Amino acid sequence: MIGGGHGAFIGPIHRIAAALHGQWQIVAGALSSTPDKSLASGRELLLAPDRNYPTWRDMLAAESQRPPADRIAAVSIVTPNSSHFEIALACVHAGFHVICDKPMVTTSDQASTLIDAVHKSGTLFAVTYNYTGYPMVKQAAAMVRAGELGDIRKVFVEYHQGWLATKLEETGHKQASWRQDAALAGAGGAIGDIGTHAENLLSTVTGLTIESLCADLTSFVSGRTLDDDASVLMRFKGGAKAVLTATQIAIGEQNNLTLRVHGTTGSIAWKQEEPNTLTWHHSDGSTRILSRAAAMLHPTAANSSLLPPGHPEGFLEAFANIYRSVAAAIYAQRAGNASHTPDFPTIPDGARSIRFVERVVESHRAGGKWLPF
Amino acid sequence: MIGGGHGAFIGPIHRIAAALHGQWQIVAGALSSTPDKSLASGRELLLAPDRNYPTWRDMLAAESQRPPADRIAAVSIVTPNSSHFEIALACVHAGFHVICDKPMVTTSDQASTLIDAVHKSGTLFAVTYNYTGYPMVKQAAAMVRAGELGDIRKVFVEYHQGWLATKLEETGHKQASWRQDAALAGAGGAIGDIGTHAENLLSTVTGLTIESLCADLTSFVSGRTLDDDASVLMRFKGGAKAVLTATQIAIGEQNNLTLRVHGTTGSIAWKQEEPNTLTWHHSDGSTRILSRAAAMLHPTAANSSLLPPGHPEGFLEAFANIYRSVAAAIYAQRAGNASHTPDFPTIPDGARSIRFVERVVESHRAGGKWLPF
Amino acid sequence: MIGGGHGAFIGPIHRIAAALHGQWQIVAGALSSTPDKSLASGRELLLAPDRNYPTWRDMLAAESQRPPADRIAAVSIVTPNSSHFEIALACVHAGFHVICDKPMVTTSDQASTLIDAVHKSGTLFAVTYNYTGYPMVKQAAAMVRAGELGDIRKVFVEYHQGWLATKLEETGHKQASWRQDAALAGAGGAIGDIGTHAENLLSTVTGLTIESLCADLTSFVSGRTLDDDASVLMRFKGGAKAVLTATQIAIGEQNNLTLRVHGTTGSIAWKQEEPNTLTWHHSDGSTRILSRAAAMLHPTAANSSLLPPGHPEGFLEAFANIYRSVAAAIYAQRAGNASHTPDFPTIPDGARSIRFVERVVESHRAGGKWLPF
Amino acid sequence: MIGGGHGAFIGPIHRIAAALHGQWQIVAGALSSTPDKSLASGRELLLAPDRNYPTWRDMLAAESQRPPADRIAAVSIVTPNSSHFEIALACVHAGFHVICDKPMVTTSDQASTLIDAVHKSGTLFAVTYNYTGYPMVKQAAAMVRAGELGDIRKVFVEYHQGWLATKLEETGHKQASWRQDAALAGAGGAIGDIGTHAENLLSTVTGLTIESLCADLTSFVSGRTLDDDASVLMRFKGGAKAVLTATQIAIGEQNNLTLRVHGTTGSIAWKQEEPNTLTWHHSDGSTRILSRAAAMLHPTAANSSLLPPGHPEGFLEAFANIYRSVAAAIYAQRAGNASHTPDFPTIPDGARSIRFVERVVESHRAGGKWLPF
Repeated sequence: MIGGGHGAFIGPIHRIAAALHGQWQIVAGALSSTPDKSLASGRELLLAPDRNYPTWRDMLAAESQRPPADRIAAVSIVTPNSSHFEIALACVHAGFHVICDKPMVTTSDQASTLIDAVHKSGTLFAVTYNYTGYPMVKQAAAMVRAGELGDIRKVFVEYHQGWLATKLEETGHKQASWRQDAALAGAGGAIGDIGTHAENLLSTVTGLTIESLCADLTSFVSGRTLDDDASVLMRFKGGAKAVLTATQIAIGEQNNLTLRVHGTTGSIAWKQEEPNTLTWHHSDGSTRILSRAAAMLHPTAANSSLLPPGHPEGFLEAFANIYRSVAAAIYAQRAGNASHTPDFPTIPDGARSIRFVERVVESHRAGGKWLPF
Repeated sequence: MIGGGHGAFIGPIHRIAAALHGQWQIVAGALSSTPDKSLASGRELLLAPDRNYPTWRDMLAAESQRPPADRIAAVSIVTPNSSHFEIALACVHAGFHVICDKPMVTTSDQASTLIDAVHKSGTLFAVTYNYTGYPMVKQAAAMVRAGELGDIRKVFVEYHQGWLATKLEETGHKQASWRQDAALAGAGGAIGDIGTHAENLLSTVTGLTIESLCADLTSFVSGRTLDDDASVLMRFKGGAKAVLTATQIAIGEQNNLTLRVHGTTGSIAWKQEEPNTLTWHHSDGSTRILSRAAAMLHPTAANSSLLPPGHPEGFLEAFANIYRSVAAAIYAQRAGNASHTPDFPTIPDGARSIRFVERVVESHRAGGKWLPF
Repeated sequence: MIGGGHGAFIGPIHRIAAALHGQWQIVAGALSSTPDKSLASGRELLLAPDRNYPTWRDMLAAESQRPPADRIAAVSIVTPNSSHFEIALACVHAGFHVICDKPMVTTSDQASTLIDAVHKSGTLFAVTYNYTGYPMVKQAAAMVRAGELGDIRKVFVEYHQGWLATKLEETGHKQASWRQDAALAGAGGAIGDIGTHAENLLSTVTGLTIESLCADLTSFVSGRTLDDDASVLMRFKGGAKAVLTATQIAIGEQNNLTLRVHGTTGSIAWKQEEPNTLTWHHSDGSTRILSRAAAMLHPTAANSSLLPPGHPEGFLEAFANIYRSVAAAIYAQRAGNASHTPDFPTIPDGARSIRFVERVVESHRAGGKWLPF
Repeated sequence: MIGGGHGAFIGPIHRIAAALHGQWQIVAGALSSTPDKSLASGRELLLAPDRNYPTWRDMLAAESQRPPADRIAAVSIVTPNSSHFEIALACVHAGFHVICDKPMVTTSDQASTLIDAVHKSGTLFAVTYNYTGYPMVKQAAAMVRAGELGDIRKVFVEYHQGWLATKLEETGHKQASWRQDAALAGAGGAIGDIGTHAENLLSTVTGLTIESLCADLTSFVSGRTLDDDASVLMRFKGGAKAVLTATQIAIGEQNNLTLRVHGTTGSIAWKQEEPNTLTWHHSDGSTRILSRAAAMLHPTAANSSLLPPGHPEGFLEAFANIYRSVAAAIYAQRAGNASHTPDFPTIPDGARSIRFVERVVESHRAGGKWLPF
């Protein structure tokens, strides 16, 4: 693990998620931005002294020297966003599988470079768009692929939060501060932070290709340079359309990520805050509530449940499904199993995501014009 | 009543709504498009023979001749949309109060003419945007006026239905047919039929003035000339913004009209299909469910309940509230009570609504450009 | 109509319900307990002077003298509970159809007398257990009859309110006062007022026959002589069981009447406060949400909707369905149509209901013993 | 850990729960019922060979010999129910803290013996009634203690499942088989398996003392000797009452554990399947939805959240809170901190639970009599 030392937020989540299915163990780390802090954090996590590294460069160098069976199986990158690209590229060059927190990179140029590197090295690369790890999201995607909704016509995806309704970044709130700092967060505020999750969810479930978009961004809290609210109209190849809204000033909304997909023969709706069910409306007039208990679930969904139905699974379990899928892919690669289909967000997801933010910002800056994607 | 004869849909709704509070009685009518049908329909409703008129022109002429105390108190216009303007104008010229089904007219020019006429005649004019008759909608509007949400920032309003997901108009379905016929429905399909209700709800609750908009219309069902799906980005005077979506191809949606208003100090959410509650999120972190029982309701809401809380009120009761408010306004006018504030949608609502459809269609035809309102 | 004059609560509800489907008109009345009040109330409702009667005895006498085609078609009894029996018996003896507010009578002896009288006279007799008028309750009953749940095993029915959590009857609150006065309300407080609705809903939907019961009654608000809370365990012929709870001290509950029926092959759940849907769990693992839109509704349900799906119907519409069904039964009787099945609560429902209260009170007084029914 | 080897259900849950907060590590184990299976399971979990024991007796003996700082800190007992007593007693005698899966024992006599032993040894003893680990359950309990509901009057607790609606135990289903085998499960079927969770939740939140009860048990699936459905009326010291229902034949119910507590000044409702919110009705007419985000949470609730609000926490996190609380108590004991209040279910909870099952069965066998508790 690189990053995720003392005081971090997402690092511990990755560690719990990795541990949940019992398939990962943290054996090496360069956990912070300075050698001292890194080593201290590694001691807290009981890393073996010889694999508790002062810097990520030391880690990559030393681990590469170990016998293959004794090396780390993959690197988990949970550093600040702006450093993802450099570290990820080095890991890929060194031949390690990578699990990288989102966003993968901060520009589309970086994305292209990374895509090439991964292509050459043959390493696996996961980006933790964790919301796609929910069983019922996997079910939704499988239903679309199986044609159970017919052709997709219209999609509504919203990611609404309220925690940035005031200027929290001026109060010393660490999570708020970097998100409203263009140097750290990139060109997108709400659109980059949560809009990308919405885009990823939409794209993962529908499999549609974005053709053009028209965006309107707002900084409702005065003094902000980045958006805290985004509305995007989207058109896809084949004629489907979508409305994507992402806002962080909607008081009372906690983490409302909701997807509704309407096709020619049916519709589905999923809400992250009640993740254990999926509503399915069929054109024959019937409405079904699918849950993790349903007999008719597609295998990717059925296999992703950790607990019996009625015992609420949530955020951690979904996050853990990504780690489990990466482990499965590593095992498949080692076994030379070419037919294994990876079931986690990977390089193209990370690349499309940053392209999405760039084009949204350009559309908005052009006064809200439709732009090709 | 003009229109609403044998086989009509909205006419009987108006009659029940008018009857609910016991303040209206139908005493005269020209209920259909031909003299024969009109008279037959009037007999079904037990109208007195001398006030069962063959045509609306006959009715206006004859009623105008009766002593004032014996005349109809108001005319309810429930004819096809394209005839509203001519009839409404004649009623106003004849000095009768009018309760007109929506849309009031089909062009902004007609709206201007009618506004002038009403201004000159001093008659009351109600347009039955019935969704604003719900007690909790009145509560929402009162909360905004009282500053309980602070300044409005972002509004989401959606009106989603699924009944036009197939080409129902080709099956002889009367309600579907006129809605997809530009000659009868005007330039808007879904945007005209239900988008206008969404716009009216948004405007009534928030009191905001539309400054500009950017629209994307789609006819998802092939062969349609009018839209069956609309997405509109809106900007208001003062900086607030909104996303309005109206669709009739969302399988499984029945009559999902939902409004969410986010302000600087709080948010409210209301859903027509569960109309007896209003969710209020305050910036202090509390979430309250207001119902018709709540002690702290504003008077306009508290006075609009017919039944005790927990006894679900619905569509008819909301519709009836408009008829009751018109009766109250007529009594106030007769009593010379100048301080009475009418509590029903009226001429400017009807005018703004048609302007809204026109501008949405223009924005879309211009390729999805932002246009001033 | 007998009763329901100036200041009454349930009388106006009956009048609106009767009017909703356009099949009833109030043409005669003895609307209050004294001749003066009766006549004044009749004038308010615009009754013809010669059919605005000072007492119900006058009304029965005079209407009986009119030519059959000119008489009232039925009598609606909406007087205080303790007078129902005497009035209802007189109406039946006079040969009039009766629509009687619940409870029909106050003792099982009265019920027997009335049953005999109705049997002899051949008149129709409806008791307004209005909650069975909801379309989705009719659907539930039809599903049980059609065997769609298999054999019924366990039923949970609850009717929870909170408005009597304080001693409201001491504040001059009219509705609270008579309900906590044994002379007016009979032996049951909450069990009589709302427990009987719960029992009626349970019996109407399941068709089960009560075999024995065990009850615990409580007067939580000190000083009360009647119960304000009731818990009843029930056993039915054939082995099914039920738990019925009725309480009026549950703060925050408004009018929560909820029924859950579990059978060998499926379950259904219905909640009066969200009356437009019915949840159906099948033993194959599927869960469906049936609404008034569902294609597969049974005819009794499908025919009971006044409005399109998504336009919430409520309390009044359900109440009106009873009036409509009575009208249909009268027409069928006049037409000599012996195959018509009445679709409204009638004499046996009213009789079972009072028996239910009597046995519950006896079980409780015996210390909470199981008693045969 | 004792038990929880290859193929177990609850053992892995305990391990994940222990790992979630990063405060526990499994360092020793006797994981199965035979030495071979135990050692094989230990190897799967990477236990050190010298602490991977063939039997739990070996483990207690060997660990007791290690230097105190090097011994296991506590024993987690996740064996079949019938062996809990013997193992737990031995652990306590050996001076180890215990975390025991529910039920703690199978008779009240065993409970008394164990209570004495724990009293003498001074060890900590937790019983994993895991549902009390949810943040909002802790909030509910804190609200009752703080008097925010006034005096408790009536409680409704239900635990409804549907998975035993058919004779699953005859299909070789392991979880179903032992639950319907009196030798393994004790005298209670549904009442023992899930009724005890309901009783624990009720008692933990309200703090009430059971005075008497009256029960009705049923084996709806023919051929069963243990109940699969239970209805219990309860009376508490001080006058409060409750209705507890537990059923496993309610098709469509997954794990519906719901608690409603009604007091003199307010009510609360909590539902395990939507565990992140708590509904609070106040007698002033307001209804609030408390969530893990609410500013006004009591500290025990606020400190029990692992993830930010809106990121659903569930079953595992609640389970983990028990392990965390045990760790905190061990640290407090080691530090000699006498003022620390343990925040987990312990010996009296386990004892009351088995007493509850015994008295319920006795009441039922006596024909459904009220019995003192």
